[in-house]
Amino acid sequence: MTISLSANTTIGFLGAGQLARMSAAEAFRMGLKTAAYSGSAKRMDDPSRQPLEWMTPLRFPGTFDDETALIRFAKSCDVVTLENEFLNGALLERVEAESGTPIYPSPGTFQRLESKWLEKETFRKAGIPVTPYRIIEDTGDLKEFAAEFGFPFVLKSSKGGYDGYGNVTVSTKEQFTEAIRSLGGDQGRELIAEAFIAFEKELAVQVARNHTGTVAYPCCETIQKNHICQTVIAPAKIDPVVAEEARSLALAATEAIDGTGLFAFEFFLKSDGGLLLNESAPRPHNSGHYTIEGCIASQFENHIRAILGLPLGSVEMRRPVAVMENLLGIHNRPARVDGDTPLWSVKDAHLHVYGKEESRTGRKMGHITLLGDDHISVQRKAKQLADEIAM
Amino acid sequence: MTISLSANTTIGFLGAGQLARMSAAEAFRMGLKTAAYSGSAKRMDDPSRQPLEWMTPLRFPGTFDDETALIRFAKSCDVVTLENEFLNGALLERVEAESGTPIYPSPGTFQRLESKWLEKETFRKAGIPVTPYRIIEDTGDLKEFAAEFGFPFVLKSSKGGYDGYGNVTVSTKEQFTEAIRSLGGDQGRELIAEAFIAFEKELAVQVARNHTGTVAYPCCETIQKNHICQTVIAPAKIDPVVAEEARSLALAATEAIDGTGLFAFEFFLKSDGGLLLNESAPRPHNSGHYTIEGCIASQFENHIRAILGLPLGSVEMRRPVAVMENLLGIHNRPARVDGDTPLWSVKDAHLHVYGKEESRTGRKMGHITLLGDDHISVQRKAKQLADEIAM
Repeated sequence: MTISLSANTTIGFLGAGQLARMSAAEAFRMGLKTAAYSGSAKRMDDPSRQPLEWMTPLRFPGTFDDETALIRFAKSCDVVTLENEFLNGALLERVEAESGTPIYPSPGTFQRLESKWLEKETFRKAGIPVTPYRIIEDTGDLKEFAAEFGFPFVLKSSKGGYDGYGNVTVSTKEQFTEAIRSLGGDQGRELIAEAFIAFEKELAVQVARNHTGTVAYPCCETIQKNHICQTVIAPAKIDPVVAEEARSLALAATEAIDGTGLFAFEFFLKSDGGLLLNESAPRPHNSGHYTIEGCIASQFENHIRAILGLPLGSVEMRRPVAVMENLLGIHNRPARVDGDTPLWSVKDAHLHVYGKEESRTGRKMGHITLLGDDHISVQRKAKQLADEIAM
Repeated sequence: MTISLSANTTIGFLGAGQLARMSAAEAFRMGLKTAAYSGSAKRMDDPSRQPLEWMTPLRFPGTFDDETALIRFAKSCDVVTLENEFLNGALLERVEAESGTPIYPSPGTFQRLESKWLEKETFRKAGIPVTPYRIIEDTGDLKEFAAEFGFPFVLKSSKGGYDGYGNVTVSTKEQFTEAIRSLGGDQGRELIAEAFIAFEKELAVQVARNHTGTVAYPCCETIQKNHICQTVIAPAKIDPVVAEEARSLALAATEAIDGTGLFAFEFFLKSDGGLLLNESAPRPHNSGHYTIEGCIASQFENHIRAILGLPLGSVEMRRPVAVMENLLGIHNRPARVDGDTPLWSVKDAHLHVYGKEESRTGRKMGHITLLGDDHISVQRKAKQLADEIAM
């Protein structure tokens, strides 16, 4: 189905953070309206606003479990999309059915990714290699897991973790009880253990897909620091055979969830050259921010095209190399950009600030992207430019 | 002066059409807020909105002669900019003084361009060749003008004309009385006559300038149809010496008005290779829309950088050729995009729709830009893609 481009066509975003904001920018370019459903806005007269809420007069405060409010929101939109995965699939299914408004990624896709355990099951059954994992209910399960895969390993909340929140590294059996308790396993939260993978690199591929076709962006390398993405290098400096394998796995994974929208897949590249699918996201992803300037059509443009049912745009890179550096808050204060920002004078360096009201240490406040011709100089320069900015 | 980039920094736009909308998109990328002062919005509860008003919750309905409302608006912003030139310079000066908020382009710059007559005087005195012109008060003035420059010539409202509105071509002396009457000259409106120039091509150069420096975009060719810009070809296919001369004149013209912001200058290229400055605009301009995808930093990004006092971005083109085609309304109806839009499947073709609520015959509803490697194929393909879209 294709949704018509008219001045009355409204794209609804569940969530109003930076991903929604960057997607909305593409919707505006097509002449569309956007509406923001924000879980953090308490009331219409709440003066504080999430990033997307500064970009639209159409604001719907509400919690993500308020079925009535979600249905009302969906009814006012022509298509609804998500900017995070912390939503209940069955609820989304009811919202779609009751409102008559399509939701992409579909509730069906969403349900296959709804917890880390379901996600792993979905991909494993589709023949995609994933990190070894087990559901963990008690210390007995942890003992068995350690016996099979050794120490250290990672214990994770099956739902709701991000950027390292909801993860604990377990290195000795003395940590078992506390690890389960710290993630709420003793309160009935579903936990999974994942084997620790001694990887060479972390890779990512973004895929856009709808009934008109599927496109996959170049395989990029992601560098994490304290479980938060710090740097993305595109394309990844790897054997082209590995890049092609990552691309194939990402396409297969998108098929496995029958995805309509934009999806990101993160892989571990092992020392033997093998790949394991580590994580997936049913939405534009930090690993794909470089595509805004780096590719002919960005992940955000293709997200919007995909959910509207339009043919997808070219994923070709504009220049040989793109490096993205995240700008994490280093202060707790009202958000602002400090520093000399020499970036402004550097050709093909681009600053993105997300419009969050408050800076907090470690919070993603923005990013920079630098395009250029060779990996070494672009990586070095991008790091230097990012270091000159304080938020 | 540099305005700090903070989540509370607000850029106010006087006017809320497509130029404000495309500029605002760049402000959002920098994490800023935008506010829209719209002359067409009658009240806060008016449900119809101008293009920018769909992109911000900060909406200020008011007329462009309401000093109190303008001051209130400016006080709520950190910097104010304009998207059209139909404003009163003395009023802007008072608004700036009373609110304490800088306005760019400055009221002083604005006053030098405030009428076609003042504009011509400003540039002529700076040694920039302009189309011959005279103030016209009565048919006697027209007679003298015709005697000096011959028929046909153009009679124009000195203030408020755009896209051919406010212009009359005068071909015989029998048309004198009606020409003056049709433009309100008999009601005291200031009119100027301009000699008809048998030009080879029309050219344009956009310039961004602030205290950090000045940049000029590549000289492009504009093709008008019924006085409305139809096609822009960048770079213009002309002798490099002429392109450099156009660039020099555009820089000199920006100096002559002491401009801070983004300015566009349109030239006639005569058959003898000489250039005449025909029109100027103290704002992003239709001739520069191609820069969004065509250049590393677009005219809109440099507009925002200029008024914030930031160093200006690179005007280098991303590919050898960019062609922009305007999409004019061919229906009177609620706005929507019809047609198969084969553009979506063409690499480096980009559609922009302005988010106007109503389509009207001849109204600028959007544009497309196609990037490529050679003039002939890109021009042909761009025309074909634009023809497939009906709005």
